[in-house]
Amino acid sequence: MPDGKENTYFSSDINDRERACFEIGIKLGALYHILCGIPISSNTMIIESIEKGIEAAISCQPYVKSVKINIDREKIQGDKTTEFEYDELSGILIAATVVLEFNSVEITAKVEWIDELKYPLMFIEKIRNKS
Amino acid sequence: MPDGKENTYFSSDINDRERACFEIGIKLGALYHILCGIPISSNTMIIESIEKGIEAAISCQPYVKSVKINIDREKIQGDKTTEFEYDELSGILIAATVVLEFNSVEITAKVEWIDELKYPLMFIEKIRNKS
Amino acid sequence: MPDGKENTYFSSDINDRERACFEIGIKLGALYHILCGIPISSNTMIIESIEKGIEAAISCQPYVKSVKINIDREKIQGDKTTEFEYDELSGILIAATVVLEFNSVEITAKVEWIDELKYPLMFIEKIRNKS
Amino acid sequence: MPDGKENTYFSSDINDRERACFEIGIKLGALYHILCGIPISSNTMIIESIEKGIEAAISCQPYVKSVKINIDREKIQGDKTTEFEYDELSGILIAATVVLEFNSVEITAKVEWIDELKYPLMFIEKIRNKS
Repeated sequence: MPDGKENTYFSSDINDRERACFEIGIKLGALYHILCGIPISSNTMIIESIEKGIEAAISCQPYVKSVKINIDREKIQGDKTTEFEYDELSGILIAATVVLEFNSVEITAKVEWIDELKYPLMFIEKIRNKS
Repeated sequence: MPDGKENTYFSSDINDRERACFEIGIKLGALYHILCGIPISSNTMIIESIEKGIEAAISCQPYVKSVKINIDREKIQGDKTTEFEYDELSGILIAATVVLEFNSVEITAKVEWIDELKYPLMFIEKIRNKS
Repeated sequence: MPDGKENTYFSSDINDRERACFEIGIKLGALYHILCGIPISSNTMIIESIEKGIEAAISCQPYVKSVKINIDREKIQGDKTTEFEYDELSGILIAATVVLEFNSVEITAKVEWIDELKYPLMFIEKIRNKS
Repeated sequence: MPDGKENTYFSSDINDRERACFEIGIKLGALYHILCGIPISSNTMIIESIEKGIEAAISCQPYVKSVKINIDREKIQGDKTTEFEYDELSGILIAATVVLEFNSVEITAKVEWIDELKYPLMFIEKIRNKS
């Protein structure tokens, strides 16, 4: 995004930290909804392929530095009470970390199933000025 | 979210404006990826049903005040060069506005196809302190 | 699809019943993966909006005569053990019936959560020759 | 699926060829809607990761023997008229072949963008009795 035309669409009172928070929220919302419903099995190679595929996809998006997806292998196995050899991705199985840079701001955010909330929480873990 | 347990997962130096930016980013990322690929036709009642359905869905998410989706009717018609009576939702057809409140901050953000960028841009249109 | 060019891509030994089975499989696969991950709440109006929106979308697809989606209201309410006011669609909540016609064949198929299988089963309920 | 309880839900007049057509339709419908909207770039390693990830996912589903996804690299590059370094998957870019076995029937089906139809057609390429 060399020329920054897209910035002119933003309210002018948004600073770099706020913009970084917005951009990383977009990526987590996208990542989560892309993953939901994808078929999986407890086979390690299958899980890793899916993780790497969606990591690669989200990495294409603007400002993203890194993406790490961790499908919860324990919970897939725990759910295998049936003769069908697969499960599908939903909030309880999904964990991911995204690191993103917007100008001088570096931000890390996660989505993780939080047992006490019974909810796949998206939260900002760290935000800092690089310079 | 009466007791705010979820807030303890956030980095403690995130202020309300930053949090509002993050939360609305999540909603736009989710909305966009839920819409992508949904079949549509140029029939007005069908378009309106889909708009209202996904507006209702996104409205369920935390802090959301309102959601308005506008599928671009003109562009659907323009694409009907085939005998198949439907198209499917992708970036060029999707426009939406989300309004969200986090504590005293009200924020409005949009996703819109921007011709000069050839891109479905997500941007913050307005942010303000209500009190 | 007036001129049937698409038929020339099919293996020539596929009869109308087989084609109807294929087409309705496509619609169920699509419907299910569009629904997965959509946020919902136990509010009746919201549930109905989502049902009608996705019914309208799937109705646009070739050969579809009707689509009826029934999100399981009981199970949404049963899951509300948290302070967050929403859930999201997954196999346990989704039921739908699609009716489709291909030439003289009318076919009805469903997706339904089957407790004994612990699985959202897609199955053909009825197939008949109209003439 | 050792004990075949799921078969009792099907109309009893469905034969193995018809069932194979239905099952492979489901897989193509699912595959297509999982892919739609996934971010991609023209980077070969990224494309391959996404292909392999979703191939692995669809391979988990009942009766599937193999899945091959071919994202159209030419068309991604052709679309790069903007400064944003990514595109997203839609019908024009998606091609896939699924092979599935149900009892003695082996079936191959595809989804492919057909220029003359301007449509991502799903069709049965081959069906045969193995014995």
